[in-house]
Amino acid sequence: MKKLVIAYSGGLDTSYCAVSLSKEFEVHAVSVNTGGFTKEEINHIESNAYKMGVATYKNIDAVATFYQKVVKYLIFGNVLKNNTYPLSVSAERIIQAIEIVEYAKSIDAEYIAHGSTGAGNDQVRFDMIFQTLAPGIKIITPIRDEQLTRQQEIDYLKENGIDMSWEKAKYSINKGLWGTSVGGEETLSSEKPLPDEAYPSQLKHAEDEKVKLTFSKGELVAVNGIENNPEINIEVLNNLASVYAIGRDIHVGDTIVGIKGRVGFEAAAALITIKAHHLLEKHTLTKWQLQHKEYIASFYGMHLHEGQYLDPVMRDMEAFLQSSQDKVTGEVTVTLKPYHFDLDGISSEHDLMSAKFGSYGEENKGWSAEDAKGFIKILGNQNKIYQHVNS
Amino acid sequence: MKKLVIAYSGGLDTSYCAVSLSKEFEVHAVSVNTGGFTKEEINHIESNAYKMGVATYKNIDAVATFYQKVVKYLIFGNVLKNNTYPLSVSAERIIQAIEIVEYAKSIDAEYIAHGSTGAGNDQVRFDMIFQTLAPGIKIITPIRDEQLTRQQEIDYLKENGIDMSWEKAKYSINKGLWGTSVGGEETLSSEKPLPDEAYPSQLKHAEDEKVKLTFSKGELVAVNGIENNPEINIEVLNNLASVYAIGRDIHVGDTIVGIKGRVGFEAAAALITIKAHHLLEKHTLTKWQLQHKEYIASFYGMHLHEGQYLDPVMRDMEAFLQSSQDKVTGEVTVTLKPYHFDLDGISSEHDLMSAKFGSYGEENKGWSAEDAKGFIKILGNQNKIYQHVNS
Amino acid sequence: MKKLVIAYSGGLDTSYCAVSLSKEFEVHAVSVNTGGFTKEEINHIESNAYKMGVATYKNIDAVATFYQKVVKYLIFGNVLKNNTYPLSVSAERIIQAIEIVEYAKSIDAEYIAHGSTGAGNDQVRFDMIFQTLAPGIKIITPIRDEQLTRQQEIDYLKENGIDMSWEKAKYSINKGLWGTSVGGEETLSSEKPLPDEAYPSQLKHAEDEKVKLTFSKGELVAVNGIENNPEINIEVLNNLASVYAIGRDIHVGDTIVGIKGRVGFEAAAALITIKAHHLLEKHTLTKWQLQHKEYIASFYGMHLHEGQYLDPVMRDMEAFLQSSQDKVTGEVTVTLKPYHFDLDGISSEHDLMSAKFGSYGEENKGWSAEDAKGFIKILGNQNKIYQHVNS
Amino acid sequence: MKKLVIAYSGGLDTSYCAVSLSKEFEVHAVSVNTGGFTKEEINHIESNAYKMGVATYKNIDAVATFYQKVVKYLIFGNVLKNNTYPLSVSAERIIQAIEIVEYAKSIDAEYIAHGSTGAGNDQVRFDMIFQTLAPGIKIITPIRDEQLTRQQEIDYLKENGIDMSWEKAKYSINKGLWGTSVGGEETLSSEKPLPDEAYPSQLKHAEDEKVKLTFSKGELVAVNGIENNPEINIEVLNNLASVYAIGRDIHVGDTIVGIKGRVGFEAAAALITIKAHHLLEKHTLTKWQLQHKEYIASFYGMHLHEGQYLDPVMRDMEAFLQSSQDKVTGEVTVTLKPYHFDLDGISSEHDLMSAKFGSYGEENKGWSAEDAKGFIKILGNQNKIYQHVNS
Repeated sequence: MKKLVIAYSGGLDTSYCAVSLSKEFEVHAVSVNTGGFTKEEINHIESNAYKMGVATYKNIDAVATFYQKVVKYLIFGNVLKNNTYPLSVSAERIIQAIEIVEYAKSIDAEYIAHGSTGAGNDQVRFDMIFQTLAPGIKIITPIRDEQLTRQQEIDYLKENGIDMSWEKAKYSINKGLWGTSVGGEETLSSEKPLPDEAYPSQLKHAEDEKVKLTFSKGELVAVNGIENNPEINIEVLNNLASVYAIGRDIHVGDTIVGIKGRVGFEAAAALITIKAHHLLEKHTLTKWQLQHKEYIASFYGMHLHEGQYLDPVMRDMEAFLQSSQDKVTGEVTVTLKPYHFDLDGISSEHDLMSAKFGSYGEENKGWSAEDAKGFIKILGNQNKIYQHVNS
Repeated sequence: MKKLVIAYSGGLDTSYCAVSLSKEFEVHAVSVNTGGFTKEEINHIESNAYKMGVATYKNIDAVATFYQKVVKYLIFGNVLKNNTYPLSVSAERIIQAIEIVEYAKSIDAEYIAHGSTGAGNDQVRFDMIFQTLAPGIKIITPIRDEQLTRQQEIDYLKENGIDMSWEKAKYSINKGLWGTSVGGEETLSSEKPLPDEAYPSQLKHAEDEKVKLTFSKGELVAVNGIENNPEINIEVLNNLASVYAIGRDIHVGDTIVGIKGRVGFEAAAALITIKAHHLLEKHTLTKWQLQHKEYIASFYGMHLHEGQYLDPVMRDMEAFLQSSQDKVTGEVTVTLKPYHFDLDGISSEHDLMSAKFGSYGEENKGWSAEDAKGFIKILGNQNKIYQHVNS
Repeated sequence: MKKLVIAYSGGLDTSYCAVSLSKEFEVHAVSVNTGGFTKEEINHIESNAYKMGVATYKNIDAVATFYQKVVKYLIFGNVLKNNTYPLSVSAERIIQAIEIVEYAKSIDAEYIAHGSTGAGNDQVRFDMIFQTLAPGIKIITPIRDEQLTRQQEIDYLKENGIDMSWEKAKYSINKGLWGTSVGGEETLSSEKPLPDEAYPSQLKHAEDEKVKLTFSKGELVAVNGIENNPEINIEVLNNLASVYAIGRDIHVGDTIVGIKGRVGFEAAAALITIKAHHLLEKHTLTKWQLQHKEYIASFYGMHLHEGQYLDPVMRDMEAFLQSSQDKVTGEVTVTLKPYHFDLDGISSEHDLMSAKFGSYGEENKGWSAEDAKGFIKILGNQNKIYQHVNS
Repeated sequence: MKKLVIAYSGGLDTSYCAVSLSKEFEVHAVSVNTGGFTKEEINHIESNAYKMGVATYKNIDAVATFYQKVVKYLIFGNVLKNNTYPLSVSAERIIQAIEIVEYAKSIDAEYIAHGSTGAGNDQVRFDMIFQTLAPGIKIITPIRDEQLTRQQEIDYLKENGIDMSWEKAKYSINKGLWGTSVGGEETLSSEKPLPDEAYPSQLKHAEDEKVKLTFSKGELVAVNGIENNPEINIEVLNNLASVYAIGRDIHVGDTIVGIKGRVGFEAAAALITIKAHHLLEKHTLTKWQLQHKEYIASFYGMHLHEGQYLDPVMRDMEAFLQSSQDKVTGEVTVTLKPYHFDLDGISSEHDLMSAKFGSYGEENKGWSAEDAKGFIKILGNQNKIYQHVNS
């Protein structure tokens, strides 16, 4: 039988695929952990996979890869899509697709299957990356093609001897290192927020707590002075912050297929890290670095969201972003509070706000009143000439 | 004696200027209200002005002008400098300068005096606008030129018969329609936040409250269904929100003179209006409108901050922003909470997120699986060709 | 029979479509003149159309519409795709599509047919505009669907009693107000230029000739002092310049379908008008107007090229561009030479380069040496601080 | 006596400075060759310097440095200011300033003198770079400060025993690796072109000639197959092209001091290299690389022109540009003609325009008609929804 790799999540859709494809292919199930799965969950997925009759199951731990290839640059760029969404899911899908296709190539699979529908972004990200990195591998998408109802899938599984409980959760959750997305009845229309209980974390602490984040060249190298790999620090920070129910919001954005989509998310670590990092940048970067980073990062986020991660322009933008982080080293103090957080301030040897050079609005140590007048006179030249010529 | 117009705030610096300049000039004091002054405060400024010996005093009510000329476009552009600061003070200074120079021209003054130091942004904004709109009027800046200490000014005033109490407030406050800035000891360095009590508003309500904001072509035309001029609605909203102590933050930014400056602010109405307006735009504008607006608005904010309001490029950008608001009409529901707020959702007849066209990720009503495959195949063409040619 | 409108050019492809579709539909042929057709050519197309058995034929004169809706903004933006190509054909297709769909709606047609292949840009432009402006009208594309060879089409026509000579020209030409595109064997690969004889105009004049172009708010209102509508002036200029064989080049660009395309073009009037207009702008616009126009115009060109003309962001950009033209009024002198042209200079009452304000590098009338030193000192502040802090 | 380094060109202004400053300082004259000087010219400058009484003279050969630090990135970015000017002089000044200040530091000079006036760009570039890299060194600018006429300078030199002929050339010329600028009576106003004889090169060849340029990762590594360092190849190319009088134009631009300036230039090698390089990029880069490079390069040129070379954002942009050149390898054929040149085509193993993937407009090998229809349907989704919702 021909080898097929399936991106397997353990849910109803991919279970249906696994069972039906096993009739025709030698099915190798694979899941990619980008920070959302516990050990138990992976064990559960594995056991489910074998129930569906797959030949092999493999979980790929891609948390560090996810951080190194994508999350790092999202932090460097302070990327929040439409000033709101840290691109939690969009970013994960890219890495998952790359890991899956590399795995498929490594076992000489001729087919890859995934469970995306034909309505969303994920099909675009998966297909584009599969086709680009492995033009010879054929893509199979039963869910997109057959458009079955949940009941039809459950019935099919029962007919094939799989009788499990497939309750649909009230809220569909996608968890990863860079945040958890939450979809539900409310997000299908525009008017209403998600209820409190839809979010994965609930308020458990009411007293304020200070957290110290240490950045080195833009990377989060320590939390409260304890050094570790950035992807672990992100997790630590997320645990600290989630008891305050921090980082909830709803994103409304443009899907790759042209419709608007609305999704709730909780991303405490992502939001705190980005805001703290951005504050440190405001102290250590020049005005023009801040300005041009905005342009680069906004498009970096857009292209990533739209599955264009493999476009070489992404490497060019990453080179810009990496270069910009040269002095983004220092500590940021954050206060965690119920449902929100405050940035207290920063400390950095690269801080450009130094009393040595004059304090804003108070005293000018580096220049005289006459210097200031000369500066303003010449700075205003063009507008003065324009006004004079045209009035 | 030669006529001089002085931008008079009633404080020590401009009082010193008024007294000393009155020896040489016929001094006409003027204050411009961009939303920060109550009637009593204006009366107080007026009475102070006459104590200083000015020939006339005039308060110009420029709140509506401020809204029409600047605030409106800051909302259209969702302008937050470095993603943080609504440019409260920067924006006010522009309008104050324009009103003052127009007043000076109307009374044929040959001189304008202002109390800015040589260290900050305000001198640049004032000088540039005065020089551009009235190249013939000379600018006099005793504070910048003489660099006296507070005590020297107080002594001078005493010598001239003005014996008032000029205590320096612990926190210097600048209040206006679009927010209040707060400077103090903490903002002179990078590490610490402002204490709670430094902010003008204190938490007085703990229970959540919903507010409904109505926008018409991007303008805030009603709060909780009560229609009024946008500048009044902003004030109403600010009063509703300030009992929750919403809208506090600290901005660190690049001054026009090249140093970094740090300033606290409280701008509840500005932040809520911008975030609500932006959410409505995410539902009603196309992807490319949202993308290009970001570029335009970011530079609009930068130029405004740097006193370049009279550059004709600002009119070009305003034309873009105005055009983009054509469909930004609808209602946004906001929930006010202690120290922060949530956006609940929107309702608009121009909402592009409509179940009629397929729901994101769920169902595709407008196209088939084959359409989606064709779309992705061709969308991925360039990356596929690039990969094939280069590997 | 059901009504069908066909975009008819008189060539083999659309003749094949007209004949074969006439068996099933009441075919109404329409051609849209965006500047490429002479009266004789239109008569020839008309006579051909009736030979193919169409019910009616109509030529729509859209030259003025083409100028007003698109060309005007391409001039305002000095739009040259990849700094080379004036988007001659891309721009025409948009207007042709709009005119055709409006015509189809006006006669209650249920179908529109066009002769585009499945490989290029035109199918995207036509389909997108038809679908957007008339979602109820079905699109029929025999050439794309059936992929016949020329010989198969000729044979089919013969079988249906149409025995005409359908020689394939060595170079395929598309002529319009804004330029003529030229495709041939050489443009199918990357190495070779088109030969001299492939271009529509040949060198007939060797002596230099001066031409005076008058712009009013960015529009070309007179050539050599003779006022006329801009679209007529463009034609007059093109006639003057084409005897010098000016305006030839080869464009290599990204098609909407992701492959690279190469096409020769001759666009004397477009290139001269854009370059002259840009020169006038350099004299009359401020630095920031020039800078931001570049961003806007580059994306305007890209979106137009990709058939996104109906995206409302295009209207926002047009508002920006229109606003920017307020002072772009004056005369530009151009010298026509064999195969190229020089811009001599401009004269404008809005010229910001005026000896009154100091000549560059020679003399500073508006400021002193001390002013200049103060200006530079403060302008350099941030880099100085950066260097000091970081070294 | 205190050590002073003077940027010495051998002309009247810097000779006056050398003589008058020698009375007070130990003057060390230095000239920096960025490609404009022959050996004889350097010898002449040296002999002049000693006539003026300087303690030492040194010529620094900075051609390779100039290429590596600046010209390389101007090519990578295809930088033409306002689409016209290769920034010949602006770019040189930066390197000259850096070399001079490094030299001054190496000999422990306490002062640097330069001969710029107070009206132009050069003073800004020199002062800013000197102040940033050597905040302790004082800057002396007699020409800016004293504003003498030429006659006053000549008289002063005579009084001091220097009786040389200091005729003012009709056209002031500044020659360097990246082009020659030409100023004269005509460039002081807006109307007239420079006469033929003002340009350094005159037409000597009438017959067309083909030149083959080889690029490797964006750098010009060979001309007509002969490999050499890029800065030498640029010179070789310039010699080949200047007999055709190629590369003349007039630039009108915004000076750093806010006035408009007009300057003629001849830059055959710069224009040919940039246009050939850009063509190779159009074949080898993706659409989004081309698009975002435009933004980056436009600002890179602006900041460089304005003397902001030391802003770290320039390093970030260089990282982007360097990354983008990874595949810009191949050959470009150019035809030199009297007064202009044509790009014939390119050949590259990284060419993305490959017949293997379907030819534009002719045939679609990689997708079907149905794929194309699906692509267009979904690509047009947002505009269709927008139109439907809003009409």
